[in-house]
Amino acid sequence: MNRQILLNEKDIPKQWYNIQADMPTPVPPPLNPATGQPITPDMLAPVFPMNLIEQEVSTERWINIPDEVLEKYLIWRPTPLYRAVFLEKFLGTPARIYFKNEGVSPPGSHKPNTAMAQAYYNKVFGIKRIATETGAGQWGSALAFACNQFGLECKVYMVRISYNQKPYRRLMMETWGGKCVPSPSPETNAGKKFLAQNPEHPGSLGIAISEAIEDAVTTKDSRYSLGSVLNHVLLHQTIIGLESHKQLGSIGEYPDIVIGCAGGGSNFAGVSLAFVRDKIHGKKIQIIAAEPASCPSITKGSYVYDFGDTAETTPLLAMYSLGHGFVPAPIHAGGLRYHGMAPIVSRLAADKLIEARAYTQLETFAAGIIFARTEGFIPAPETNHAIACVIEEAKKAKEEGKEKVILMNWSGHGIIDLSAYDAYLSGKLEDYVLPDDEIQKLLKDLEKFPRP
Amino acid sequence: MNRQILLNEKDIPKQWYNIQADMPTPVPPPLNPATGQPITPDMLAPVFPMNLIEQEVSTERWINIPDEVLEKYLIWRPTPLYRAVFLEKFLGTPARIYFKNEGVSPPGSHKPNTAMAQAYYNKVFGIKRIATETGAGQWGSALAFACNQFGLECKVYMVRISYNQKPYRRLMMETWGGKCVPSPSPETNAGKKFLAQNPEHPGSLGIAISEAIEDAVTTKDSRYSLGSVLNHVLLHQTIIGLESHKQLGSIGEYPDIVIGCAGGGSNFAGVSLAFVRDKIHGKKIQIIAAEPASCPSITKGSYVYDFGDTAETTPLLAMYSLGHGFVPAPIHAGGLRYHGMAPIVSRLAADKLIEARAYTQLETFAAGIIFARTEGFIPAPETNHAIACVIEEAKKAKEEGKEKVILMNWSGHGIIDLSAYDAYLSGKLEDYVLPDDEIQKLLKDLEKFPRP
Repeated sequence: MNRQILLNEKDIPKQWYNIQADMPTPVPPPLNPATGQPITPDMLAPVFPMNLIEQEVSTERWINIPDEVLEKYLIWRPTPLYRAVFLEKFLGTPARIYFKNEGVSPPGSHKPNTAMAQAYYNKVFGIKRIATETGAGQWGSALAFACNQFGLECKVYMVRISYNQKPYRRLMMETWGGKCVPSPSPETNAGKKFLAQNPEHPGSLGIAISEAIEDAVTTKDSRYSLGSVLNHVLLHQTIIGLESHKQLGSIGEYPDIVIGCAGGGSNFAGVSLAFVRDKIHGKKIQIIAAEPASCPSITKGSYVYDFGDTAETTPLLAMYSLGHGFVPAPIHAGGLRYHGMAPIVSRLAADKLIEARAYTQLETFAAGIIFARTEGFIPAPETNHAIACVIEEAKKAKEEGKEKVILMNWSGHGIIDLSAYDAYLSGKLEDYVLPDDEIQKLLKDLEKFPRP
Repeated sequence: MNRQILLNEKDIPKQWYNIQADMPTPVPPPLNPATGQPITPDMLAPVFPMNLIEQEVSTERWINIPDEVLEKYLIWRPTPLYRAVFLEKFLGTPARIYFKNEGVSPPGSHKPNTAMAQAYYNKVFGIKRIATETGAGQWGSALAFACNQFGLECKVYMVRISYNQKPYRRLMMETWGGKCVPSPSPETNAGKKFLAQNPEHPGSLGIAISEAIEDAVTTKDSRYSLGSVLNHVLLHQTIIGLESHKQLGSIGEYPDIVIGCAGGGSNFAGVSLAFVRDKIHGKKIQIIAAEPASCPSITKGSYVYDFGDTAETTPLLAMYSLGHGFVPAPIHAGGLRYHGMAPIVSRLAADKLIEARAYTQLETFAAGIIFARTEGFIPAPETNHAIACVIEEAKKAKEEGKEKVILMNWSGHGIIDLSAYDAYLSGKLEDYVLPDDEIQKLLKDLEKFPRP
């Protein structure tokens, strides 16, 4: 029948794959915006624990997953790989579609793959408390879950508009013992400044990042944690692709196409890097990042040195960007509303090892409804971007009469995002057009920095 | 490591287990309340399709699961059995605790095990449309999911107060193409009557049942569907215990204790009947139904003939009951707010093959928080009753220094019930005391009917 391709826990990968060992062009180093010079590890030491900073710059190919992390992964991993037999039948495609279900984790997404690892490394470095920011709440809830498992305190600055509109994610964090406050908050100087301007300030991810970093560097035994973009985050996510690789191998399959949605880049990298490795070694395989048409970092952005955050507090990262001042439209796929793209993913895109496509909000929800009504599981709005791409490729395979094998990362469920489906089904959902000239203007400011 | 005990899809049970073939005392037949005589299958024909009515009264031990249902079960089954290693460690118990994760289904509970089967049997009987009622929405969403899979229309009458307070379950139904209206509704005579009394009537499960049955018997090609209590519903749920039996067997384990929460009785029966069979054949095993102290049908009710619904529209069923006029307190475990108990479970309780224990709301949420903060997964409020019982037994095993094996049905996740956790964590949750004298009064009305 081959619907569920399971992996027994004894076969769980024991190492993460570090693509920095194999990239034809290395990732350009982060730069100090003041000097234009590469930053040094010690400059990051107040923000991240040194063991994670070391991982960030490591070029070791295989990095052992500590036993303590493996034990926690077994709470929900290995995750099942499903063949989407009902979707295939609906589309009448000769393609064989497989989706890796990362929605089975307690917080419902792929995010805990790195949250658990980061909590562990902070713990062994002697850190007692982690601060972070969250937009819609996927990352904050994953980190609260992980900190709870390792007995760390967790403080989450959640963008106020989401805090008010999406109480379920906050409640999830609190159920795991995390502390979640609306940002801007009166608990940091950055927050106070914005509250002074407007006591009902709706907040933004940029402000929340500033608050979390300030909190981490000014509170005893605290560090900051990021849920995407950085090299070590992508590293921890490679377990998704490594498991998929084994699972497909166990039934004699290998993908012609690997697809993931891309915001900051971590779930896309998670499913694809193990296959990019094969591609570097000569395997013919197509690897596609599906991004929102309203925030198309790779498809419409430029490969530049840009700030990782809106508030210009981070080092400069070499990435595809729409400019750090770009405020993406309020699409429901909150996790994809990021102006840039992970440096590793960006470098691979520049080297044509991966490609990107953009989908409109309405296209993605149409795809999500098809998925929910064939495969049953209701996908997260972010995941719907990958599904839209899968459906496009499956239709193409049908036209060409080709038995293509497609692997998709089903990055999370949409149970907490059902109001977005409601908006779609009742015709209230909008598409957003990206103002090209505005982006050119935002990117112009970056011309003073070196090119990657 | 033995955290995940998986079952490959080729090993999924191909038959349901019908305990009616093995019960030492047969289930007393349903009676016509007007005559006190057993009802005949044709009396139920306007309400249920004949193939399900036949299943309701069958005494065949093993009933083949149709291939079409098996294919749909593979959307999410076999479900994983987990060893609760983190909970064991927290409790410091020598007991080995296993939980069967039924929360992995698309609607997030065990309910689709029977919804899928019922949708199939209605479909092959030529039915085009199913009507049902739902309280908190677990059952309505499961049936909408199943009807969508078999191309049937689904109409759900949802108790108005839940319809307003719990929009996510309604949105889930609509995402799968189901139609959900608040009950009382203007679409039935029963509904109109209550709306005439009060246009903002909050509704009740009794009223919603009346509406759904009226809808089913008055609409072309329609039938009614029930999510618990009846024999055929329990039959379909036996796949939970059959899978668990195989999974435990695969690692050389056999339970000393099997635990499930019990409202109408279907998830408890689902996990336990395969083990009750062993017990009937001489195996030493303890089987415990965990029910709410505010609605303790078995622990405080009487074994009588009572109506299945508040509105007195059903035949009389032989069951443990608190009286069909009993309105359970508004606990968050909405799925356990039922005045009676499935006739099969009731008969087994009367024959001491199973036992029951009652837990207060605060005890169950305390247990749920312990579970969420050890095993990670956030349980449904209903499931917390089973967890409270598991923790009690694990502590007892510790005191006695015994290596007991405990199996629990983890009947569903609590992602949509997070506001209940919020109420608990902020100290707003109440316990309810059951008024004993009121129940004696309600049961007194039943003295005119025969005793089972």
